[in-house]
Amino acid sequence: MDLNETHDGGLRSWVPDANDAATDFPVQNLPFGIFRRRGSSESWRGGVAIGGQVLDLAAAAASCALPAARTGPAAAALACAGQPVLNDLMGLGAAPLGALRLILSRALRMGAPQQSALQACLVRQDDAEMALPARIGDYTDFYTSLHHATRVGKLMRPDNPLLPNYKWVPIGYHGRCSSIVVSGEGVRRPQGQRMPPGSEAPVVGPSERLDYELELGVFIGRGNELGSSIALDDAQAHVFGLCLLNDWSARDLQAWEYQPLGPFLGKNFATTISPWIVTSEALAPYRVPWTRPAGDPQPLPYLQSQQLRESGALDIELAVYIETQRMRAANVQPHRLSLSNFRDCYWSVAQMIAHHSVNGCNLRPGDLLGTGTQSGPAPAQAGSLLELSQGGRQPLTLPNGEQRRFLDDGDVIILRAACRREGYARLGFGEARGRIEPARWQADAG
Amino acid sequence: MDLNETHDGGLRSWVPDANDAATDFPVQNLPFGIFRRRGSSESWRGGVAIGGQVLDLAAAAASCALPAARTGPAAAALACAGQPVLNDLMGLGAAPLGALRLILSRALRMGAPQQSALQACLVRQDDAEMALPARIGDYTDFYTSLHHATRVGKLMRPDNPLLPNYKWVPIGYHGRCSSIVVSGEGVRRPQGQRMPPGSEAPVVGPSERLDYELELGVFIGRGNELGSSIALDDAQAHVFGLCLLNDWSARDLQAWEYQPLGPFLGKNFATTISPWIVTSEALAPYRVPWTRPAGDPQPLPYLQSQQLRESGALDIELAVYIETQRMRAANVQPHRLSLSNFRDCYWSVAQMIAHHSVNGCNLRPGDLLGTGTQSGPAPAQAGSLLELSQGGRQPLTLPNGEQRRFLDDGDVIILRAACRREGYARLGFGEARGRIEPARWQADAG
Repeated sequence: MDLNETHDGGLRSWVPDANDAATDFPVQNLPFGIFRRRGSSESWRGGVAIGGQVLDLAAAAASCALPAARTGPAAAALACAGQPVLNDLMGLGAAPLGALRLILSRALRMGAPQQSALQACLVRQDDAEMALPARIGDYTDFYTSLHHATRVGKLMRPDNPLLPNYKWVPIGYHGRCSSIVVSGEGVRRPQGQRMPPGSEAPVVGPSERLDYELELGVFIGRGNELGSSIALDDAQAHVFGLCLLNDWSARDLQAWEYQPLGPFLGKNFATTISPWIVTSEALAPYRVPWTRPAGDPQPLPYLQSQQLRESGALDIELAVYIETQRMRAANVQPHRLSLSNFRDCYWSVAQMIAHHSVNGCNLRPGDLLGTGTQSGPAPAQAGSLLELSQGGRQPLTLPNGEQRRFLDDGDVIILRAACRREGYARLGFGEARGRIEPARWQADAG
Repeated sequence: MDLNETHDGGLRSWVPDANDAATDFPVQNLPFGIFRRRGSSESWRGGVAIGGQVLDLAAAAASCALPAARTGPAAAALACAGQPVLNDLMGLGAAPLGALRLILSRALRMGAPQQSALQACLVRQDDAEMALPARIGDYTDFYTSLHHATRVGKLMRPDNPLLPNYKWVPIGYHGRCSSIVVSGEGVRRPQGQRMPPGSEAPVVGPSERLDYELELGVFIGRGNELGSSIALDDAQAHVFGLCLLNDWSARDLQAWEYQPLGPFLGKNFATTISPWIVTSEALAPYRVPWTRPAGDPQPLPYLQSQQLRESGALDIELAVYIETQRMRAANVQPHRLSLSNFRDCYWSVAQMIAHHSVNGCNLRPGDLLGTGTQSGPAPAQAGSLLELSQGGRQPLTLPNGEQRRFLDDGDVIILRAACRREGYARLGFGEARGRIEPARWQADAG
């Protein structure tokens, strides 16, 4: 995707805090989400984050504050953006979305004549509640970090950490749509079967090894027909945008159940995503070359191209923070557990999509792909407690002296991400936040 | 579920062919589906199969031909039944559905005063096209046949066919919703990676080991809230009904990809279901005791109960037929490949549901569960070619001399099912039919 005037690092907005160095949402970002005023019974509708505000796209359409979007490809995009889910907007493809982005960028810039009309369409983010941005038809989770796969593999198979298919196949599996929740919703500790070491029979009860996984989510834009495939170099055009994704995992349930058909109850009790989707177009300046470690096999032809090698990866810094009950009580800031970067992934977003559809599987607008846990090469860059605590053997000590092997009730996990490039704006992703609630234990389930 | 007058084996209908011994749809069945006149641009709407006809429920509601359904719980059910998907109907729960069933049963019986008014609401099944009965939010596939799991396990791990969790955990995994199609739609042979035996690197191309799997599908009725569980003895009330399900499988793709996260491209290219859902209530007379083989461990408390032991299994005879291109050209009837019975499953429908939700995972109306391949104890009762051909080592010879290890292009696979009990009607499930279309091979995908 080419860079254009909307990516100009020098742009400033008339929305005052959109120009703060610390904002996630400068005028170069313009991520989409679904919102309404908190506590109201208003209709859910699309909005764009700008500084600490939401630009209400349904209101903007109704008030004709964006005359440039009254006709042409942007008109369809603006109409779809006011709906209670963004699936139709996502399905429009790149041209209408780009036209709307350009109009929004111009209207939100310092000195724009639309300022007074648009001011009435702003809602403070603090006054808004957010919903899932789309009706997610299918959710697929991948496993694209070699560092994560190797470290987790070592815990389970010390002599054979990486399975032979890993460097050939972008491994993925289908996850649960019904339990995907938006940042801020509580996450109840799941209960289920686990096999205690040395036991003869499993026991049932609340998970004792509850974990997070630091991932990005990829929302599909335009889909493909059942029986057709998306070629690698077309894949980018099928991506609407990216968000943060926490693939909560109950390691004890997962370890006992996952053979031979993969994770199920260890994962499907909750997945938290951030409410704002940073669009493919906004991410264009942060594309970087995709490379393979020397000596590794080159991917099969359907998974490689010149375009991939030149700009197939994304430079997105990813961080996980924890806030325990004691930290909250003491008013201590959340503690950063790890920092990694999506450019270290082994398989790119385009490879995920080309692989997913090579067999004719159809993707639909609003489908969600998870990237899998993004762990960096250094042990401290691991995107899960399973790795950081070496399978629970080595507890982490937090700055206030508390220890964690896995998550306690009351712990809050916060995922954050940002793109930075010299000469360009810093784009943030907001956050994906979830707090562990105690298990609802049923006496008769034991 | 108690038996009532709708189950009376002596009932006869004024729809003439509904009384034929061979019909799948006597007046005791009354399965729901979504239809419209073939080739028309009519709205999709709910119907009930009766003999060779569809009773158009939208037309029945509009014509007031069912005065008993104008008020009370049946009114809501009839209104929902006219919608283009049955999700709302499914979510109503047992009482409104039971009320509508009783009204339909009485109105369709020989001598019913509604006959002349309802006659105008009948559409011949031959003149109807069918759609998916629901917007399927999540599709979960289980693995409930011990005979299937053992036979498949032997092919992969001769010394250790059954994994240690099998007799404790109703193993399941999430499947793909977007590629679920209704009976009659073509199934394109998928392409993808496979690792030829003895090779150093995988190859990409059309699957050479394409297979079917004989399953039942379970449509969820009333759902549960995220974070709550469905107790075993409540599970039956969350089942709307059952259909046939063919979980098409590319064994070569699956074998190479499935470690460690389970099946993905080997399965998600297509799943075929039959269009008619036989309701929980219609199936009541065919419930039979659920038992465990002597010496096997008893399930954990959340997976067993007195009710399960008394009536937790269902006596449903299941059959797979093949019709090759040569058979079609010669006008030969489809050949039966296997015959098995759902009463031989190791885990029941109620156990699938109680397990699926024990961790708080929420099920929603219209969700689909697959039972996994239903193979009986005898080798000839196997519900997949993988088993029947012993992993492709032993080709099957069809009556016309053709041989099959796996499916050829042009092969049609037909699943059928029926319930029988002395003194009760024979209920059929219609069929789930799919024809293998040649791979759409892309030169650049190799």
